[in-house]
Amino acid sequence: MKSGETASSELLHAQLGTTAFVPRIDFFWSVLLIWLIGDCTISDPNAPSQKSGARRAKKPMSELKLPARSEDFSEWYNQIVLRAELADYAPVRGCMIVRPYGWALWENITQALDRRFKATGHVNAAFPLLIPRSFIEKEKSHVAGFSPELAVVTHGGGEELEEPLVIRPTSETIIGHAYAKWIQSYRDLPLLINQWNSVVRWELRTKLFLRTLEFFWQEGHTAHATLAEAEAETRQMLDIYTDFAVRDAAIPVIPGRKSAAERFAGADETYSIEAMMGDGKALQAGTSHNLGQNFAKAFEIRYLDQTGALQYCWTTSWGLSTRFIGAVIMVHGDDQGLVLPPRLAPFQVVVVPIFKNDEEKAVVLPLAQKLSGTLADSGIRLKMDSREGISPGFKFNDWEMRGVPLRLELGPRDAAKGSVVLARRDRPGREGKSIAPQQGLETAVRNALEEIQKSLLDRALDFRNKNTVTTSDYEEFKKAVQTGFALSWWCGSAPCEEKIKEETKATMRCIPLEQQRRSGKCVYCGQPAIEQGIFARAY
Amino acid sequence: MKSGETASSELLHAQLGTTAFVPRIDFFWSVLLIWLIGDCTISDPNAPSQKSGARRAKKPMSELKLPARSEDFSEWYNQIVLRAELADYAPVRGCMIVRPYGWALWENITQALDRRFKATGHVNAAFPLLIPRSFIEKEKSHVAGFSPELAVVTHGGGEELEEPLVIRPTSETIIGHAYAKWIQSYRDLPLLINQWNSVVRWELRTKLFLRTLEFFWQEGHTAHATLAEAEAETRQMLDIYTDFAVRDAAIPVIPGRKSAAERFAGADETYSIEAMMGDGKALQAGTSHNLGQNFAKAFEIRYLDQTGALQYCWTTSWGLSTRFIGAVIMVHGDDQGLVLPPRLAPFQVVVVPIFKNDEEKAVVLPLAQKLSGTLADSGIRLKMDSREGISPGFKFNDWEMRGVPLRLELGPRDAAKGSVVLARRDRPGREGKSIAPQQGLETAVRNALEEIQKSLLDRALDFRNKNTVTTSDYEEFKKAVQTGFALSWWCGSAPCEEKIKEETKATMRCIPLEQQRRSGKCVYCGQPAIEQGIFARAY
Repeated sequence: MKSGETASSELLHAQLGTTAFVPRIDFFWSVLLIWLIGDCTISDPNAPSQKSGARRAKKPMSELKLPARSEDFSEWYNQIVLRAELADYAPVRGCMIVRPYGWALWENITQALDRRFKATGHVNAAFPLLIPRSFIEKEKSHVAGFSPELAVVTHGGGEELEEPLVIRPTSETIIGHAYAKWIQSYRDLPLLINQWNSVVRWELRTKLFLRTLEFFWQEGHTAHATLAEAEAETRQMLDIYTDFAVRDAAIPVIPGRKSAAERFAGADETYSIEAMMGDGKALQAGTSHNLGQNFAKAFEIRYLDQTGALQYCWTTSWGLSTRFIGAVIMVHGDDQGLVLPPRLAPFQVVVVPIFKNDEEKAVVLPLAQKLSGTLADSGIRLKMDSREGISPGFKFNDWEMRGVPLRLELGPRDAAKGSVVLARRDRPGREGKSIAPQQGLETAVRNALEEIQKSLLDRALDFRNKNTVTTSDYEEFKKAVQTGFALSWWCGSAPCEEKIKEETKATMRCIPLEQQRRSGKCVYCGQPAIEQGIFARAY
Repeated sequence: MKSGETASSELLHAQLGTTAFVPRIDFFWSVLLIWLIGDCTISDPNAPSQKSGARRAKKPMSELKLPARSEDFSEWYNQIVLRAELADYAPVRGCMIVRPYGWALWENITQALDRRFKATGHVNAAFPLLIPRSFIEKEKSHVAGFSPELAVVTHGGGEELEEPLVIRPTSETIIGHAYAKWIQSYRDLPLLINQWNSVVRWELRTKLFLRTLEFFWQEGHTAHATLAEAEAETRQMLDIYTDFAVRDAAIPVIPGRKSAAERFAGADETYSIEAMMGDGKALQAGTSHNLGQNFAKAFEIRYLDQTGALQYCWTTSWGLSTRFIGAVIMVHGDDQGLVLPPRLAPFQVVVVPIFKNDEEKAVVLPLAQKLSGTLADSGIRLKMDSREGISPGFKFNDWEMRGVPLRLELGPRDAAKGSVVLARRDRPGREGKSIAPQQGLETAVRNALEEIQKSLLDRALDFRNKNTVTTSDYEEFKKAVQTGFALSWWCGSAPCEEKIKEETKATMRCIPLEQQRRSGKCVYCGQPAIEQGIFARAY
């Protein structure tokens, strides 16, 4: 099992190494290429920003410095996505291509989640992507929420369809239809199904990973005999998302309950995990909905209980999408590019052999290969960068852009001394470098990866704490939400929430599950409040 | 890793156990349910056949005997798909829901293939499901082949689109567009990408798994510097499909080249693996296409070679779909239901504890749990069926329908003797039963699973050999293709192929890669022929 994984990650590289175009072409060809084809990486008409320096200069993106994160966060983000080859624009407005490096990251996310879903009794299935339009209309909040965003299929096989079909924006309706058929008795409950797929929502303003017409996700759909069980499931899945975000993605998230205004269309209660991005804005990174009996009633999902009475089921749904990749970028990335948490990184380690001539190469290369082999055999996802004609410095920058957590440098002097240099991606420069003996290298590498994982979480938590203000003063609140989160008492009324949004652009992200056991005064109206909410501008 | 897998398969069951409705409801409720809801499993308007005995009798399908395979192959097939809960009809004509048990089988197929793809240097990515309609029109054979089958999106976000979009019927065009952007130099080649997704083709006559409007598959798309490399890739992927089919699915397949008439729309050469189903018909179980420079020219996929000259790439594509599940059913299934090859079975072993009273239960159940735990810990995918109120005989039938390769029975006498009974699914009745000691049970189980795997392949191969006639006599040929394959000399002309099809309904399945090094006379026209082809009626 382990050796299979290792082989895959080795080979993933073999491929990835061939797809990044400009860095691997020497200068003469670069110039010719730029002349011939322009900078096609960013000349796509779908690219949202026209202010890229790369575009003005007609230089390939890879030869230009990444904009500083503090200077132009949005453009910094866009360029990381393209330069690290996580995704690219598709020919249809607002759609994206997830490139192999981005998909390898998503595969690691799916595995980390799927393991947790299966360990809690869920199974996977696949429901169709085409849904009769009338299905969407069966649940009244659902149709109000989703009908403006639908992609509609009107023709099939050369003929106009009698009833138009929509491409699923989410699958509550078609799954509700199936559950009504499959569930007969209390013995059939709970029914706990998840699916990994893509959905389409006709968004107007799009941004790679964060908001795209088609996005990839998992959607879990469960049916239960009682409200209590449905609520327990909803909360269990929120816990799973929280655990995944914190442990695997090193993203501290706040699990909480949404206000009525922010609920999923058709839910009685929506919970989410909210994360603070590097610019202080919030991103909803996963949601879990208690759908009550809304879909059960719309689709007649009923069961015979133990007394023989026919009852409506209680259902839930929960999802986490490729948007999460956007969070990983915006939480951990820095001015050198992407920074990936070791547990999710496609390559945890990149090995860069350093030599100036054939003599040095004859010593360094076989040793680098041997050390790489040993690490890979132990299950570490590793890439050995033996590209020729490219300087070590260029390779360092290249893999820093792609966020590989740990770099292992090996030159002739290291070879002679029986050591290697380890360079941590999370601490650029000398500070992050250390020397490790070749003997027992696996332990040193594993320890470094664990330290990086922990340090990323600590740093993100520290950043969030520094940029979260607990306040009930509205002036202070208004200032706080310009740069981060405000944790404030809220009376629970929709008008206060709405006015805050109008005046500050901040929305009620969630009411954290962990609350202080006291009460206060609403930050907007001053009326008594029993809950504090996280307010922030959000993606 | 292993224990994770085991936990998953254990839990898969916990779920599956709750979704099969009628068997788990006692008789009184069954009758009530039938009265209340009818036999909803087969009352779907999309169900293709109305001749099911279940429908006439208004009894749930699970209480009726499966039609004999020899008697009504088509209905036998449909009922296995539904009763084993592999798939169900969707509300949109011709679409299917792959249920958890069917999806678990598909997940095992995907893992077996994905491992092989990665070991040969391929990486996964995700391209959008929406394609501008004009893309399909860029390659002239492609548009002729696919335009009658397209699902067309004309409206998005409440407005009519300027250019209609199609849901991908296959992704050569959108991937060609991306490759033109990504590939610049010979250093970017080969580019070896695969994606797992679903595609939509507007089929008129549909059948679960075999031909559905939406189906699930993988599609590999590669670009190369030379024709020779593209041809080598095309053949390598055919070899991988062959290896997978034979080793993992125990399906003997014939790898071969398609005639021009049967080629993929846009390919210079199409190869396929062809398998014989239990009714003697052929099923194309996977295809690999050498696309020449057709798509490279349509989409301007070019690279600078080592001399600085701009060249068109050579591309390939290859796919295997959920249709393969249909092959598994039709090759191995018998009158008791599904028979799954151990390497792909979601559950390799089902453990059925047998007891008549609490005293026996107190002995048998903990022992069954202990043995199950030991086997599961060793990585065997196992289901322990401890459902109460259901007889062991019912459980036997239930798991036989679902095709679990090996049943482990444990009663009080077995417990006392320190043994268990192993019952092989591939050999029903006494013949397939043996006694194994509890000590070292893992070895006995592993040996049995390997024997079953081998025996399924041998049996299928034997069946194919018995039903394949090598002939150059047209009368004999016509008889042969009524019940199986004819291997016959063919002059290579399209008119002969066409006339054979008109007169016998048999098509040229493939020209096997392994050919005798001699020549003969065309089975139809009697002209000289240098290749023998497999002719058969096909799914």
